[in-house]
Amino acid sequence: MTESTTPRKHIVVLGAGFGGVAFCQAFPEGLADITLVDRNNYHLFQPLLYQVATADLSPADIAEPIRTIFDRRRDIKVLMDEVSGIDLAKRTVTMQRRTLTYDYLVLAVGARTGYFGNNEWARHAGGLKGIDDALNIRNRVLTAFEEAENCLDPEQVRRLTTFVVVGGGPTGVELAGALGELTRRVLRRDFKNIDTSQARVFLIQGASRLLPPYHQALSEYARQKLVKLGVDVRVSARVTRVGPQRVELDNGKVIEAANIIWCAGVEANPLTRKLGLPTDRTGRLKVEPDLRLPGHPEVLAIGDIAALTDARGVDVPGVAPAALQMGRYAAKVIEAQLRGRTPPRPFVYFDKGSMATIGRAAAVLEVGRLRMTGFFAWMGWLLVHLAMLVGFNNKVSVLTEWIFRYITYRQGARIITTPRTDELLRDAT
Amino acid sequence: MTESTTPRKHIVVLGAGFGGVAFCQAFPEGLADITLVDRNNYHLFQPLLYQVATADLSPADIAEPIRTIFDRRRDIKVLMDEVSGIDLAKRTVTMQRRTLTYDYLVLAVGARTGYFGNNEWARHAGGLKGIDDALNIRNRVLTAFEEAENCLDPEQVRRLTTFVVVGGGPTGVELAGALGELTRRVLRRDFKNIDTSQARVFLIQGASRLLPPYHQALSEYARQKLVKLGVDVRVSARVTRVGPQRVELDNGKVIEAANIIWCAGVEANPLTRKLGLPTDRTGRLKVEPDLRLPGHPEVLAIGDIAALTDARGVDVPGVAPAALQMGRYAAKVIEAQLRGRTPPRPFVYFDKGSMATIGRAAAVLEVGRLRMTGFFAWMGWLLVHLAMLVGFNNKVSVLTEWIFRYITYRQGARIITTPRTDELLRDAT
Repeated sequence: MTESTTPRKHIVVLGAGFGGVAFCQAFPEGLADITLVDRNNYHLFQPLLYQVATADLSPADIAEPIRTIFDRRRDIKVLMDEVSGIDLAKRTVTMQRRTLTYDYLVLAVGARTGYFGNNEWARHAGGLKGIDDALNIRNRVLTAFEEAENCLDPEQVRRLTTFVVVGGGPTGVELAGALGELTRRVLRRDFKNIDTSQARVFLIQGASRLLPPYHQALSEYARQKLVKLGVDVRVSARVTRVGPQRVELDNGKVIEAANIIWCAGVEANPLTRKLGLPTDRTGRLKVEPDLRLPGHPEVLAIGDIAALTDARGVDVPGVAPAALQMGRYAAKVIEAQLRGRTPPRPFVYFDKGSMATIGRAAAVLEVGRLRMTGFFAWMGWLLVHLAMLVGFNNKVSVLTEWIFRYITYRQGARIITTPRTDELLRDAT
Repeated sequence: MTESTTPRKHIVVLGAGFGGVAFCQAFPEGLADITLVDRNNYHLFQPLLYQVATADLSPADIAEPIRTIFDRRRDIKVLMDEVSGIDLAKRTVTMQRRTLTYDYLVLAVGARTGYFGNNEWARHAGGLKGIDDALNIRNRVLTAFEEAENCLDPEQVRRLTTFVVVGGGPTGVELAGALGELTRRVLRRDFKNIDTSQARVFLIQGASRLLPPYHQALSEYARQKLVKLGVDVRVSARVTRVGPQRVELDNGKVIEAANIIWCAGVEANPLTRKLGLPTDRTGRLKVEPDLRLPGHPEVLAIGDIAALTDARGVDVPGVAPAALQMGRYAAKVIEAQLRGRTPPRPFVYFDKGSMATIGRAAAVLEVGRLRMTGFFAWMGWLLVHLAMLVGFNNKVSVLTEWIFRYITYRQGARIITTPRTDELLRDAT
């Protein structure tokens, strides 16, 4: 290779989500040294995360070790570490264990749950962005039913078996549907003191309909399907306050619920705000048409932390396909520069369509003008998600789980695995 | 049924391990009201627990919700709660949430890791009895390699990549073999700064050979297989002290290791000692030939907490088949009494043989005078363990994992899922 005669450039990629992984996969082997940093040792397939929260899947089913993805790429070094700061002037990234110097930096640190400035609500209403969130929800939901089964106070039983999902986007819709199914069907035979089908699942949506980016007809289909699953859907309802086991809406209604899950918003990783560069309302970095940061052509931002209206005037959404496309595009930008070629034309987002599933054998699917609902949309959703899952092993085990669940109405991961706090400080009895 | 005219007796079963579950399954439906209490919501298939620790399997693969096992038994109520005390005189069981009154009590609370009076060693050398233990080991082992990959101090790298398994019984042998395979083969391609095949796995055994209850030839086979997997086997070596990242042996040797795992002993659940009844050295309750507690014919102890020399003079061992047999026997004892029939003859343990696996495609198997090693023993081990796994779904997913792993040398659950401590107290940046 011609590059091997000159010292190789060092590219640091922060974040191994869809954007960071796509960048590394698309970047030609041997052209530079790449260090990929993530605080976890796995790449997470976020679109199926809600199924971990509802005990359908195990964490390992939707998480692939980052090292395994790149085990044949000798030019890519993977580090598990947490980034504490970035110095754009010195071109360094400070982590908890060491500091890296870069020639190019690819920022792909993604988003986290956002509370529109009410961060104190996080105490009472956890989000669903990581595996820890999903396990937390799984443990809390299952524990709530266990406590209710054991509880003699009807008021408390009602609170324990009430679930509130805030946010009527795809995550909220999918989670509420899965909770509806879990309570109405899966758990029903399991409990004998309580009737789990009396459990209440609320879905609170601020906008006037569910899944706002979709066509009106699909929103209505989703609403009807959710109602059939026993979900109490409230549109045009804004949350004004979240307290312990309690949600207040702007129409004055108060819902008492042991489990409140926040799917109403995301904000960019707070690292972005520390850079002193222009960001949008949710903390996303404003990027040039080629994804570079203004004034820092050696730094590119991709995925959920990049705010961009593309060359065709489309606001690039914070979804997995956009992150994938930006990752591949960023690889071309740096490759062109290293090879001394013409830079690629400005980034254009290609909308491949959207899909969301609502419980068993129902989904909505929208690709351009094509709209689909029902069983075939669900089969489409299933195939696309399986095809996108990274490792072969994950595909097999997720497919096994899905087939099993479809046949038996049972969920495979209904176990409560809260770590004991006394793990190391065992009693001396 | 004739029983329905008189008020039904209430049987409380504490513990949903092999013994407690076998009791409930064997007890005739409708003859009494049964309440089954466990602090977890799942029945754990402990023989495969080490595979969760070595990232082969996910927790849900070897755990079945207790409610699901008994969802068709209307006479069995399942409660998830922690027992805090038992009053034999008043016939009550106090739990964290409520108190139960019983006519019959079946104690099946099992064993926990035992340190021969050195409970402070637990801080530095965790055991392998529950899912929390297994996840703790998995997270620590994987994190140690991640830290080593990122570490510039060779001394510290050596410490991070040294593993000590204390105890040469089946659990210790199986765990050490799996760790040998993990470091030598599975992780090898994943890491680029460190050579994981340089990792050291020590197996420390106090007795003069591994797997003491087996025939000498099998012990030797197991030792040779482990050595081939890179395990440093030390027999006739006693641990005299365990400190932070440090094990001292009676021959003066000191091993510095970031991960020390204790498989050298178990002791009965401490509940047994609070009863004021005779126990053996490891806290097991001495029981009558029909498993009843002396002076308390309404209380039976089964499984790992019962100390018994059976009618044929055999000391019943603390293994899964013994717990299953005791559970079924206890059901017969209470059934006979309720139906006014002749009580069954004293309990006799039927030794079905033992087996242990050592890494890939090797195992030892001993049934009476039949001894077997190698691939066919391993196939036997595999089939028996699959057949004994409770739920159909678990069988399918475990089989999938095993086949996948056999073909690819990869492990499916190599993810670090330590819960974040700041989960609810997110930063305000």
